[in-house]
Amino acid sequence: MAHIKLEEGIPGIRSLVIYRPDTGKPLYDLAQVLLREESPLSSAERELIAAYVSNMNTCNFCMSSHAAAARYLFQDEAQTVDLVLEDYQNAPISDKLKALLTIAGKVQTDARTVSDDDVNTARSFGATDRDIHDTVLIAAAFCMFNRYVDGLATLSPTAPELYAQMGERMGTLGYVLPKKSN
Amino acid sequence: MAHIKLEEGIPGIRSLVIYRPDTGKPLYDLAQVLLREESPLSSAERELIAAYVSNMNTCNFCMSSHAAAARYLFQDEAQTVDLVLEDYQNAPISDKLKALLTIAGKVQTDARTVSDDDVNTARSFGATDRDIHDTVLIAAAFCMFNRYVDGLATLSPTAPELYAQMGERMGTLGYVLPKKSN
Repeated sequence: MAHIKLEEGIPGIRSLVIYRPDTGKPLYDLAQVLLREESPLSSAERELIAAYVSNMNTCNFCMSSHAAAARYLFQDEAQTVDLVLEDYQNAPISDKLKALLTIAGKVQTDARTVSDDDVNTARSFGATDRDIHDTVLIAAAFCMFNRYVDGLATLSPTAPELYAQMGERMGTLGYVLPKKSN
Repeated sequence: MAHIKLEEGIPGIRSLVIYRPDTGKPLYDLAQVLLREESPLSSAERELIAAYVSNMNTCNFCMSSHAAAARYLFQDEAQTVDLVLEDYQNAPISDKLKALLTIAGKVQTDARTVSDDDVNTARSFGATDRDIHDTVLIAAAFCMFNRYVDGLATLSPTAPELYAQMGERMGTLGYVLPKKSN
């Protein structure tokens, strides 16, 4: 049960942005611009970074929903998303994306440890300033979203089919502020 | 030196929102609504929670600037801010604010550990749902801001008088998106 009174049956971040829409708006605006609008990283790759960081933070709701969005956007027959979450260094992704996931992981653990070497490795595989910027901000933003959702003990469904539906909605509609149901 | 090319001489978050204004806008909108607009917590108390969490994350720029904003807003002759950062349990603040800082600290470390007991203790000292919500979101948001600023190794001045100026600007003008200087 959540730590504050939220609309019943609404999971995760959606229950919180309905509770306080004035903070919900910049939070959804941030997710939309960061995960959907112009970037050298595809939306699928950005959702994968979000899922990876959420997994490190053991945030079931954010990990499951953003992994589902990444699966939908990758049209993921090769199970890329699950292989990355299991062991990204040996997953079938580019060296550039591996180097960016290393940076994202350091941002999650202690952002001060992102080193010139980490950044130079990413650059050697073709990463630009914008790749590095967007990776750091996605990783940082999910350290917020994960804590917001779990710190208030919001509803976190377990049924995979619910997340598959969420992933398709996130992949097609993006981040549109939900409205109170009455 | 920062990990990406940023406008020279501009510190912390300001250099990043100038670099990418389209993500900067929702970030500043979030700070403004969360730290300045309507809440049962005063702006001074909210800046203090931000400084406390930034201190736990060892983010010099965010800790110094938000501590300076809190000092300005508290008109802090009694050095409340410094005493809280040193040992909040024995600082001259209300039991309610101590209980909320305990929740903020757990959000920083592992948000899943915020317990019913923590929340009930805060309620016993008068905290409402909105106090608890706003505390959790401020703590979560600064886990993002701190990582964004430090993960990209932005400029973090050390001179206290610079932060005193910043604190006064943040206390009077709030969070207004800076513009590129040329």
